[in-house]
Amino acid sequence: MRILVTNDDGIEAAGLHALADALRPLGEVVIVAPDRQQSAVGHALTVSEPLRVVPFRSNGQHVGYAVNGTPADCVKLAVTSLLPWRPDVVASGINHGRNTAVNILYSGTVSAATEGTLLGIPSLAFSLDAYQPEVDFRAASLIARYLVQHLPQLGVPLGTLLNVNIPALPLEQIRGIRVTRQGASVWRDWYERRRDPWGREYFWLAGEYLLADGIPDADDVALVQGYVSITPIRYELTDFELLEPLSRAVDELLPLPRMSHTSCKADGETA
Amino acid sequence: MRILVTNDDGIEAAGLHALADALRPLGEVVIVAPDRQQSAVGHALTVSEPLRVVPFRSNGQHVGYAVNGTPADCVKLAVTSLLPWRPDVVASGINHGRNTAVNILYSGTVSAATEGTLLGIPSLAFSLDAYQPEVDFRAASLIARYLVQHLPQLGVPLGTLLNVNIPALPLEQIRGIRVTRQGASVWRDWYERRRDPWGREYFWLAGEYLLADGIPDADDVALVQGYVSITPIRYELTDFELLEPLSRAVDELLPLPRMSHTSCKADGETA
Repeated sequence: MRILVTNDDGIEAAGLHALADALRPLGEVVIVAPDRQQSAVGHALTVSEPLRVVPFRSNGQHVGYAVNGTPADCVKLAVTSLLPWRPDVVASGINHGRNTAVNILYSGTVSAATEGTLLGIPSLAFSLDAYQPEVDFRAASLIARYLVQHLPQLGVPLGTLLNVNIPALPLEQIRGIRVTRQGASVWRDWYERRRDPWGREYFWLAGEYLLADGIPDADDVALVQGYVSITPIRYELTDFELLEPLSRAVDELLPLPRMSHTSCKADGETA
Repeated sequence: MRILVTNDDGIEAAGLHALADALRPLGEVVIVAPDRQQSAVGHALTVSEPLRVVPFRSNGQHVGYAVNGTPADCVKLAVTSLLPWRPDVVASGINHGRNTAVNILYSGTVSAATEGTLLGIPSLAFSLDAYQPEVDFRAASLIARYLVQHLPQLGVPLGTLLNVNIPALPLEQIRGIRVTRQGASVWRDWYERRRDPWGREYFWLAGEYLLADGIPDADDVALVQGYVSITPIRYELTDFELLEPLSRAVDELLPLPRMSHTSCKADGETA
């Protein structure tokens, strides 16, 4: 098995190397990861600037490459240009902090797995529900390996990725694995208005996570209860239920013959 | 009607001001937009750095603010901190280039509308299918105004945004409006390997768009045929069809009692 490992916390992150070390017994592992922290980058791609690639060594071994780009850049570059083989699996993480509910949209960890999926490669994102700088990735690493190892038996179709969130508990306290849906938790955001040492104003994003526990099979709910949460994700964004009523509304309101300059004038605007 | 206008091409972009000018007859318009080009940033948020806000003037009038952030930053900052009122609508664009199919995932234009939607505000993304530097935004502006004006009648639920793509044609040549689904077109990507003036290697993303025309009601298909495409988009990412079979597969493969350090060992690994 050939495995591409990446993350969004950067190539120095402990969670990345915990994941790579855990997966090495399964086959050939190469790390291609951002050269610095890239949290909340969403599915960003670098198109207006060049990417630089620097070989990365760990304990004297060449284990991969650092890229001055986003997680999605790393996967695209690795698969199309850097690696001598096509990965059988893309494993992203282990992220420092959960990626559930709305966080999935902002997550660089998930976006790396998304890019793998778009390239037609089975992909998983792993996140550990812990924010302390020093955290134990051992249980999460073992679970990640177990899932990657058994991925072929899970019957995940191409085009769907597995978003895995792991509680920050010792393995024996983890209650099991639950297949979940994307939850409804949201952030209540604000910006702190501050002044820099030169008196100039700046804004810094702050917020609190509002845990929604109304959906019993939601990712956050499983996590809080001590379960590993696996949410299958696919990027079919169309609101299919709305297609037909919206079509009717558009046909009624905006008939083709009226699509003229005149009918497009706003009320009260002179011709 | 109070309208927040933003984009991802940056606050100097012609498409942004064409949109703002077109919407001004409908009510109060404020621009909060990135201070520079932000294409393909996905749904990135700036969390590790401060945001700066600079008032922006156009033709001697104060029309809004430039922010050193992403489109999603602009919307979040505007709604939570900058504006004295809550917008009734977030309008993002007019983007220079189409945002259809897979591009929706990478699009900063769409991500701004996504952030509006997450904040509970009806939101639309507008993109013009043209890449030439000098392009006529007049038809697209009129269509954008017409849609914003009639948005209340379209019955779009909160949580769903409208992703609007407009062909680069004079208004009288546009054949009408079609409600569409996200298409299946993809990029065939590669990286050009080059050397900088100092002999150092760099990589630059290149690619060609592979138009999928197998889905008759896809966004790209409507656009190519000369129609305005409106795709309703929502961020329910769960692969619901997979929930039950995946649950069964996980239960069979990974029963709780076996979730121990021993069973997590990879084959061939010593204890």
